[in-house]
Amino acid sequence: MVDKEPDFQPSEERNEWDMERIHELAGRLLPIYADVAAGRIDDPKIQRYLNELIGILHDLHPADMATVLESLPQQERVMVWKLSEPDEDGEVLLEVSDAVRETLIESMGQQELLAAIEDLDADELAELAPDLPKEVVHEALESLDAEERAQVVSALSYEEDEVGALMDFELVSIRADVTCEVVLRYLRRFESLPDHTDKIFVVDDDDVLQGVLPIRSLLVSDPEELVENVMSTDVVRFRPEDDVEEAAAAFERYDLVTAPVVDNNKKLIGRITVDEMLDVIREESEADMLNMAGLKEEEDLFAPIIDSFKNRWMWLVINLCTAFVASRVIGMFEGSIEKIVALAALMPIVAGIGGNSGNQTITMIVRSLAMGQLNLSQSGRLLRKELGVALLNGVIWGSVMGVVSYLLYGNIGIGLVMVAAMTLNLVLAATMGVLIPVVMEKFGRDPALGSSVLITAVTDSGGFMIFLGLATIFLL
Amino acid sequence: MVDKEPDFQPSEERNEWDMERIHELAGRLLPIYADVAAGRIDDPKIQRYLNELIGILHDLHPADMATVLESLPQQERVMVWKLSEPDEDGEVLLEVSDAVRETLIESMGQQELLAAIEDLDADELAELAPDLPKEVVHEALESLDAEERAQVVSALSYEEDEVGALMDFELVSIRADVTCEVVLRYLRRFESLPDHTDKIFVVDDDDVLQGVLPIRSLLVSDPEELVENVMSTDVVRFRPEDDVEEAAAAFERYDLVTAPVVDNNKKLIGRITVDEMLDVIREESEADMLNMAGLKEEEDLFAPIIDSFKNRWMWLVINLCTAFVASRVIGMFEGSIEKIVALAALMPIVAGIGGNSGNQTITMIVRSLAMGQLNLSQSGRLLRKELGVALLNGVIWGSVMGVVSYLLYGNIGIGLVMVAAMTLNLVLAATMGVLIPVVMEKFGRDPALGSSVLITAVTDSGGFMIFLGLATIFLL
Repeated sequence: MVDKEPDFQPSEERNEWDMERIHELAGRLLPIYADVAAGRIDDPKIQRYLNELIGILHDLHPADMATVLESLPQQERVMVWKLSEPDEDGEVLLEVSDAVRETLIESMGQQELLAAIEDLDADELAELAPDLPKEVVHEALESLDAEERAQVVSALSYEEDEVGALMDFELVSIRADVTCEVVLRYLRRFESLPDHTDKIFVVDDDDVLQGVLPIRSLLVSDPEELVENVMSTDVVRFRPEDDVEEAAAAFERYDLVTAPVVDNNKKLIGRITVDEMLDVIREESEADMLNMAGLKEEEDLFAPIIDSFKNRWMWLVINLCTAFVASRVIGMFEGSIEKIVALAALMPIVAGIGGNSGNQTITMIVRSLAMGQLNLSQSGRLLRKELGVALLNGVIWGSVMGVVSYLLYGNIGIGLVMVAAMTLNLVLAATMGVLIPVVMEKFGRDPALGSSVLITAVTDSGGFMIFLGLATIFLL
Repeated sequence: MVDKEPDFQPSEERNEWDMERIHELAGRLLPIYADVAAGRIDDPKIQRYLNELIGILHDLHPADMATVLESLPQQERVMVWKLSEPDEDGEVLLEVSDAVRETLIESMGQQELLAAIEDLDADELAELAPDLPKEVVHEALESLDAEERAQVVSALSYEEDEVGALMDFELVSIRADVTCEVVLRYLRRFESLPDHTDKIFVVDDDDVLQGVLPIRSLLVSDPEELVENVMSTDVVRFRPEDDVEEAAAAFERYDLVTAPVVDNNKKLIGRITVDEMLDVIREESEADMLNMAGLKEEEDLFAPIIDSFKNRWMWLVINLCTAFVASRVIGMFEGSIEKIVALAALMPIVAGIGGNSGNQTITMIVRSLAMGQLNLSQSGRLLRKELGVALLNGVIWGSVMGVVSYLLYGNIGIGLVMVAAMTLNLVLAATMGVLIPVVMEKFGRDPALGSSVLITAVTDSGGFMIFLGLATIFLL
């Protein structure tokens, strides 16, 4: 029996405590790290710090170790990485973000890398392979047996967003014509069962999937009962080329823990597990959030300035282009602004409320499309509803700002143009807020990507055009 | 054995096919629904449609039924709801979004509601209770035994974001001093085991948690072995008052399927399961996305216009206020704009790039804080890095726009003011992009909420102020 005082802290609290101490110790040790690495330490205080740090690192779960590494600046990160136990290095590499993984792999020699990855399963090796030096992957493949090598190669043949890339090859399968007692005896011969085993896959002689035997059913069944009488044949299963986000949605919908993956001949080739799906859901929503904010991908917090620049410049340039277009729209009306300078002060209000309201509409629709709640045949009805909301908002907030503008500038005309322009720009925002994602979806594009930039571009340029145009017609 | 042709379609595809047909059938039946409800149908074609619709609905999983209901306009939704089988009504009510749940419950009589919820577990009943009429909850509680009633009351006593509110009371517990063989025999006495049972909880005579016995270990252990020699004592456990988002992060981190919940005396009181955590992760990221777009909460796609208005007006008003402040900043410089009208056309570019870049910084930081990667003691270092990125962007894109402005207006002064203003506004955006979330976190506020609005407000007003201020000083 492992004799450890059970830990009654929620893991997050425990974590934060360790984290600060690790940061403190790493900060103290970094300046003398060259001496530490060479084993030249005389100062007993430094030795104590070092021992304490190594002790903390030793007890960390690989996932916690990954968080620690992600939170450290690059020099401290490499030092802590070198001080940590190498036997779980592979697990940690799997857990850290892509950006941090690169910095860790760069700091390792070929032999260290090989040692780190030698205990990984085929699917895990395949996950790391794209980030590893070619020679290391080659040598690692050499050390595998033919079956495992075939699994790695197969996993590498799928795109990152296909089920095949996340597939796990470790599974337990049985025949349908044996009794539950036989299954229990068979399981007892295993050293350990694969992670997350909540069901056993039932296959025929050609490995064609017949059904699944949930462990929950196995445990309550009469031992004499045949598997085929206990198994369930209505199984949610996937093909390796299925989209991982759809698989994750199915896991969520049907409360799955594991599910079989079958090929075109219905042969069982692997399984996927809920822990991978949690990551998919997290990454999916993060990708949306990052894209909406104009970041290409997740960033290492302490990345060199140039790396952050590369991750962000593209959206900035797109934004600059749309802002330039809006600026030229204003340029067209410089004559009007020269005559009524108040227009310059009021125009951002018209553009701003359009952008805000358009983003509300578009976000709601992107979300409904992602959840499978919105049928494209409904878009007409939806558009009518959004137009209603836009008109209501336009009349109310347009009037408020109309009155305010009138009070500020003492010109009833400016007030009326303000009401009309705000209402029209809200109508434009509602129309484009429905059309942009619906059209993107129709053409098979991801409606989340760039929708927000597009709608803001339209409501900015459109808002300036509507407001300055109306003012030019009615006030000059 | 259930004799069904195994389904080899990924669930999503299957779903979409049904969905369109359901929409079509519902559309055809709606106009004559009064007759249908009264049983007055003579037309055999209508009868066929009705039978087909009922057939499709009958085969739907409650989660799929929920998606169908969410995708239908309100009248069709109520009709389909009335046509669906009542025996899984409770499950469907649990699955639909809050907004749609309200419309469904409104359409049901008291007896129907009682019938729908009578098979629910204590934790499920507690989840629905806030949306149900008081009399229904009261009557449902009456029908429970004392233990279940206590469970419902306990679950209702926790906030929505506390582990206690998601806790499940159905679990299997055993003593440490029995053999695995005894455990297996004990399990066989169950009709069925609770969902997601991947471990059995080991408790002493006072129900104090001693450890857990993973089913995976139980299955491979020698039947004669004692539970205490097989169980694991290093258990991730939660208290009912823990935050659900932290619990979900722990599930993700440690790849859990279920985890025990204990009270202050370490007594086992319930468990939480991974399916609830999937929902938490999905809702957490959705809430961030909705908030960033200025929506108060998830919306029923086909909500009446007035409901959508209520959900959206608050952020529009906040946006209107910040836009008004920006407008007054411009108003301060009307004299300058009157003299150099080009300023009016160029100023949105300065404000725009600041907002975009500030949102990039803030999103990255909000995300790192949420993932526990960012230690507040690191904020100084992070600020220096972000300032570096801002300066680099400012010099590059500022120069590009400076040259463009010079070419457009033939005025070298305008070009230089443009470079300086863009660089300064990017520096302002970087500073506030780091400070806003860090300060919010320090004061225990959610840094995601409203950060985006705040940074845009600062970079808009700040951008106008910097650009028009510099222009007034150097160009007039």
